[in-house]
Formats: sequence, structure tokens, C-alpha cells
Amino acid sequence: MSSHKDFVAHNEKYAQERHRPNLPTPPSKKLLIVTCMDSRIDNFDSLGLQLGEAHIIRNAGGAAKDALRSIIISQRMLGTREIALFHHTGCGLLTFTTPQLREKIKAELGPNANAETSEVLEKMEFLEFSDLEASVKEDVEFLRNHPLVLKETTVTGWIFRVEDGRIHQVV
Amino acid sequence: MSSHKDFVAHNEKYAQERHRPNLPTPPSKKLLIVTCMDSRIDNFDSLGLQLGEAHIIRNAGGAAKDALRSIIISQRMLGTREIALFHHTGCGLLTFTTPQLREKIKAELGPNANAETSEVLEKMEFLEFSDLEASVKEDVEFLRNHPLVLKETTVTGWIFRVEDGRIHQVV
Repeated sequence: MSSHKDFVAHNEKYAQERHRPNLPTPPSKKLLIVTCMDSRIDNFDSLGLQLGEAHIIRNAGGAAKDALRSIIISQRMLGTREIALFHHTGCGLLTFTTPQLREKIKAELGPNANAETSEVLEKMEFLEFSDLEASVKEDVEFLRNHPLVLKETTVTGWIFRVEDGRIHQVV
Repeated sequence: MSSHKDFVAHNEKYAQERHRPNLPTPPSKKLLIVTCMDSRIDNFDSLGLQLGEAHIIRNAGGAAKDALRSIIISQRMLGTREIALFHHTGCGLLTFTTPQLREKIKAELGPNANAETSEVLEKMEFLEFSDLEASVKEDVEFLRNHPLVLKETTVTGWIFRVEDGRIHQVV
């Protein structure tokens, strides 16, 4: 495994030809995107974003709950006031449940699973979902009602289709 | 606030001209990137990544601890075996401490801060850092030693410079 060895040559070309230096830290569109870590999603290209315009939070599934620390920092320290949350078709989070993944990891760890590791694992929620559209609605509701998310925030919820690259707004 | 109104037109052009459909869910390079939500970082362009190659986790700072749920899913369910973690110059996480941000939010909430909200806030760690290079080393160590991260994982740590778009490897 050494994909990182390709980074430097690609990056030098990027730095010389396409990077925009001297942009301010607060995103110019006051926009925050929450989306999945999935390899088939390029937020800049698929949404027409430019450097400097939006914070982008990515985690397994695009889970709002897991993004909360970052959202608070984005809003309180760096002025974002709009959140667009995306989940997507073909997401890995549609394929397992937390108890199943816990059991799989316990089996893989075997005798390496000490009491502390087992405890961390038992407390970990993997935030999977079984209904894609419902999961978007639930996450948007979570953000709209959370006491630490600013009341004046515009929150929208979307689905990205990996099959054709198209988005549609759910809520 | 209505930046989301621009998404659909941009996206239609993307879907027609540049999206790659029918890529498998597991990233082809077995690579996982962890980086900050900062608006000045485009991981695809700055590292020369293509759709389908790598998971990308982004949160405030590029914090390894906050990425753990996603990393476990990426490794156990979708086969990634290399992690490249990036922090960057000019990061918002260099500008405050958790106690300062808690106080700021409490002041902004004023009488809206009920007991439950205050308790959530008191438990929240914002994972700031004061030394950029040290923060990269600490996060790489965290991943290399974590019992739920696979032992055979290649973990590297990097700094991205927003001033000129260049990266350099720290560890």
C-alpha cells in the first residue's frame, strides 16, 4: 500500500496551476455541506463549488449526529448559516447493522479483544440506515431541532445518485 | 441564504459530462484520506485523485479521533488499508480552546441554555490544537496504536499549506 507516493507529483502541478492562495478562512457562501466519505462523490465538481466557498464535512453515511462538533465550530467560529446534507444511493451504511458490525469485528479481533476494546466497541454506534430517503429527513430534523445548531440556519436534505451523478432535493 | 439553489444547474452539467457511473463501492486504491472541512481544500484536485479511488473523511481540523467510526466502517466493510491524514496551515482549530468555545456558546445561548443543553456542551471536546506539526504526529500515533484500527494499515501524516496549495509529509 503506497498510494501516498503519488501525491507529491500531482500536488506540485496543482499548486503551480490551479490553487487559489490568499482566500479567507470563513467560507464565502456561508455554506456547509455534509456528505458521505464515499469515493464516488466529488463535492466541488458535482455541485459546482469553488475553493473558499463552503465547508465540507464527510463521514460514513453523511451522518448529521457525527458531524455535530464540526457544525458547531463552522457556525460559531466561521460564520456558516446554511447546511446542505447529502446521503447517496449505493451507500455502505445501507448494508449492515451496528450489532452485525460489532460481531464481525469481535470475530476478527479474536483473542486480541481485551476488556477495554470490547467496551469501546459496545458503546460505538455506527449510524447505519435502512431507508435512504427517511434517513435524509431524520438527519435534517435532527439539525433543525438541535439546541446547539443556530435557529436561523437554512437546512436542506438531498440524495446523490452514484448511478448517474444526479442530485435531488428531499427536504 | 440559498446557495443550494445553484446546485441543480451545476449538477446537471456534471452528470452529463463528467460523472463516472458504475464504479464499485470499495475504493480501488484501498485508500482513506482524513482532512479538515476547510473550504480551501479540494482533495481530488490537490492530490490527483479520481472518482472511485479513495474514501474521504472531513471534519473540523481533520481529527483522527472524530473519524474513528468512519475509519472502522471503511476498513472492515469496504477494504481500505492505507490512511493519509492531513492537517493544514491557517486552520480554525488553531484559534481557540474548548473552554473558550464553550463559554462563547453559553453566552450566545443566554436564557435558551437549559440544563440538558449545558450538559451536552460541557461534555463536548472540540479537539483543537496549538502546534500544527505536533497535532499531525499525535493523530498518526492515535491511529497506529488504536486497537480497532487494523494493524496492517499504512498511516502517513501530512500538512497542506493553504498559502500555496502544497503538501509535505510530516510522518
